Amino acid sequence: MSESGNRWTTTIGKAEPDRVLLRGYNLTEDLLGKVSFGEMTYLMMMGRRPTPGQAKMVEALLVVLAEHGVTAASIAARLTYANAPEALQGAIAAAILGAGSVHLGSATDCARMLQEALADQPADADLDKLAEATVERFLAQKRIIPGLGHGTHRGGDPRAARLFEIAKETGVYGRACGLLERIEKIVEQRRGRLLPINVTGAMGAIDVDLGLPWQVAKGFAVVGRAMGALAHLTDEVREPLGHQISAHVVNNFDYQDPPR
Amino acid sequence: MSESGNRWTTTIGKAEPDRVLLRGYNLTEDLLGKVSFGEMTYLMMMGRRPTPGQAKMVEALLVVLAEHGVTAASIAARLTYANAPEALQGAIAAAILGAGSVHLGSATDCARMLQEALADQPADADLDKLAEATVERFLAQKRIIPGLGHGTHRGGDPRAARLFEIAKETGVYGRACGLLERIEKIVEQRRGRLLPINVTGAMGAIDVDLGLPWQVAKGFAVVGRAMGALAHLTDEVREPLGHQISAHVVNNFDYQDPPR
Amino acid sequence: MSESGNRWTTTIGKAEPDRVLLRGYNLTEDLLGKVSFGEMTYLMMMGRRPTPGQAKMVEALLVVLAEHGVTAASIAARLTYANAPEALQGAIAAAILGAGSVHLGSATDCARMLQEALADQPADADLDKLAEATVERFLAQKRIIPGLGHGTHRGGDPRAARLFEIAKETGVYGRACGLLERIEKIVEQRRGRLLPINVTGAMGAIDVDLGLPWQVAKGFAVVGRAMGALAHLTDEVREPLGHQISAHVVNNFDYQDPPR
Amino acid sequence: MSESGNRWTTTIGKAEPDRVLLRGYNLTEDLLGKVSFGEMTYLMMMGRRPTPGQAKMVEALLVVLAEHGVTAASIAARLTYANAPEALQGAIAAAILGAGSVHLGSATDCARMLQEALADQPADADLDKLAEATVERFLAQKRIIPGLGHGTHRGGDPRAARLFEIAKETGVYGRACGLLERIEKIVEQRRGRLLPINVTGAMGAIDVDLGLPWQVAKGFAVVGRAMGALAHLTDEVREPLGHQISAHVVNNFDYQDPPR
Repeated sequence: MSESGNRWTTTIGKAEPDRVLLRGYNLTEDLLGKVSFGEMTYLMMMGRRPTPGQAKMVEALLVVLAEHGVTAASIAARLTYANAPEALQGAIAAAILGAGSVHLGSATDCARMLQEALADQPADADLDKLAEATVERFLAQKRIIPGLGHGTHRGGDPRAARLFEIAKETGVYGRACGLLERIEKIVEQRRGRLLPINVTGAMGAIDVDLGLPWQVAKGFAVVGRAMGALAHLTDEVREPLGHQISAHVVNNFDYQDPPR
Repeated sequence: MSESGNRWTTTIGKAEPDRVLLRGYNLTEDLLGKVSFGEMTYLMMMGRRPTPGQAKMVEALLVVLAEHGVTAASIAARLTYANAPEALQGAIAAAILGAGSVHLGSATDCARMLQEALADQPADADLDKLAEATVERFLAQKRIIPGLGHGTHRGGDPRAARLFEIAKETGVYGRACGLLERIEKIVEQRRGRLLPINVTGAMGAIDVDLGLPWQVAKGFAVVGRAMGALAHLTDEVREPLGHQISAHVVNNFDYQDPPR
Repeated sequence: MSESGNRWTTTIGKAEPDRVLLRGYNLTEDLLGKVSFGEMTYLMMMGRRPTPGQAKMVEALLVVLAEHGVTAASIAARLTYANAPEALQGAIAAAILGAGSVHLGSATDCARMLQEALADQPADADLDKLAEATVERFLAQKRIIPGLGHGTHRGGDPRAARLFEIAKETGVYGRACGLLERIEKIVEQRRGRLLPINVTGAMGAIDVDLGLPWQVAKGFAVVGRAMGALAHLTDEVREPLGHQISAHVVNNFDYQDPPR
Repeated sequence: MSESGNRWTTTIGKAEPDRVLLRGYNLTEDLLGKVSFGEMTYLMMMGRRPTPGQAKMVEALLVVLAEHGVTAASIAARLTYANAPEALQGAIAAAILGAGSVHLGSATDCARMLQEALADQPADADLDKLAEATVERFLAQKRIIPGLGHGTHRGGDPRAARLFEIAKETGVYGRACGLLERIEKIVEQRRGRLLPINVTGAMGAIDVDLGLPWQVAKGFAVVGRAMGALAHLTDEVREPLGHQISAHVVNNFDYQDPPR
């Protein structure tokens, strides 16, 4: 029993001696070999199987930020693996630990902005007014509007555009996506210049339209990054570079005594 | 330049100002919305796109150990999130860190056994003889043969059986799978009792037949587990239990002073 | 060379073939067997050896939050170790990952509040006025003043009191500590009831008076927690409980199918 | 209650409303400001307060591998912090995750060798014979004897020598240290050339003489490394280099398409 004598209920799953039940399905009979990883992800997060459109959307969200070639995350994974090859899990964890606020935080912040703006609104709420009010609120608080702007993609982030395309194709595009596009427009009018929706902003909006809480809005990216790290580690096994990478950085440092 | 003045080459990918290239493909144009996460995983790990059969196989490997309901991994994730909700990535990392030798180690060990047995063998090597020699070698060294036996599934692990079924359907089943099934048979003959291939053993064999190095044989399970943890954390956001879980364990401990 | 062709300088240290230089000292000759871990910590973080008083202060900061008996952190460590005993480092990392905002965040936030309030102030700034202005600013922004209040210690957190006592004894107590005590007083006057400085608040103030940036204000607690986890893992090796702990939690969950 | 209805006992500690009890002591009254971190570490790991000699030994073990200047561990910490500054704990965890088998494994392996050799031996066992038998056993199994040899310190690792010096001064030096020195001698006689005890070997032997189980033999180094990472992160806050380090590595990679 728990502290208060209460038991807890879970609908996620249960391992029994001869079967694993997951969200109401039998792993071996109903899922294995029949569902893709994206479908499984939706099932586990939402508690029900996705429509084909939702499944396609989730696959895209898992893929979009999984891999960018050599990055801080994959370097951390290689450095860790080179010193702890007995624990592949630790090297993948090291890569994940960099999935923090600097890049992915705007997925979380954007999802939160949209979810809070839409909370308690009727289904036919006027999105233009909501967008206006949201922009006002952020400007009044001198806060940056999350999900807009990109260092290099001034004319628009092609990954964001593609995600919204898929969201429309698959019917996932809903009020949160619509609200974010209106916010983008209002900001453009006020600034006189486009500040385009970026990939993490689009991800945050789509997450909300899928029904996910904003707190896990960067979750698909974290899972994708685990896979990306695994790919780099597979290459590291084939051609070990971890110690060379370490030496390459160490050798660019000059040591000098601190002032006394 | 590296320590030795050398540059390194990667075929994994590269982020350019307006496109991301991954294993020879353009992320936005060629992959996003077109490939499933399983296909993406194969592409990133193997450097080429999978056949439909290979893709199906990889989806199954990503799914099979992703989730078992409440486990040590998901408990660690919830406990971590309850105290560090600002860092979802840390809670997922905590779940991954338990993907160690006790359960998943046999995937690694089994893949290694098979890969080393098949190394330098001609394509038409006699698998019966190889199986015999492998069993002899392990018995002579008093080592446990990895990938066989299961605490509860005495008559056969249904997940292993299902994975091999899919491996046959998809054409992935090859010499490593064949060798492991022969090893199972020889062990049964010697013991007079079945010691069935378990799920991690099957995973290890299939990984080798996919062309992966044994060192990353548990990688699909680690990625799957990242997703499983994300599902539990999504439920934790919806209904926070982390602090109650902690109290439930703490309250089952009695403190006493150590002997002086 | 770096991207820009620049080299970097570090004063932390350098490993040479026959010696390790750290902050201007030779590890084997000057430090090993001669400095305590607390002195070493100060040296590494501040770049110079501590006075005896500073050393005593740092030892107290390393000790104060290191261990609280069985907690979420030590449970996560045991669960992780039970499944990945090959990687002690992973189990300790799992414990550290819970050192997040919920408990330790107020050390960071309090240090930031004090450091920002004191920035650009002359050495003889009027701390009463600064305290007044700080409280005003937080109230105007409807933000909680960090470092005050405690769930159980309504009359004052004995650990905070002891830390401040040591800070006074050792001469570390300075403007940040003084400012926080004035803030406590002003808040008490306004509320008509004491909201006492808590242990993380005191830690944050002392960190600032030691000269540390607020961003690492919880660092001593994280290092302490690594040690605490190691102690629990040492007990786990002596008497393994990890799997029982896991089962104890799993058994308090009832599974039910999700609604369809 | 646990699965079996049993409760567990811990002697580590307990947080009560107005005091924290740790291994029989009151944190605020007995420990804080009175014990060094090294004494606290011994108390927590061993369940009793150290003698002054044991305390000095533990301080040295915590210090010896804590820091080597810029290394893979501190690079991983900086890369992680640069992307996830909201979670200092994650950056420290990333540094710890590289505390694996490649460097520190020999502490674990050496401690295990010594502890197993000494198990069930009478207090007056002949260490020369035990050393002989141990060397024989490793050679017969074609295993490397852990704790001997060093890439650069051919004539002897000065850190190992210093640790043994301290072990003798403090009275910690016991049968495990003596056995390892005899093993070193026998190996030298057989090879005709010194293969000196290295720092991790000495650490493993001293851990055993302190009474610790071999499974945690690298624990002091992991805690030390947490501190070392914290020092680098403090410098990273003062002068951010994480993104430059990442770019420096990325720029040394050339991308090319994989063969089709």
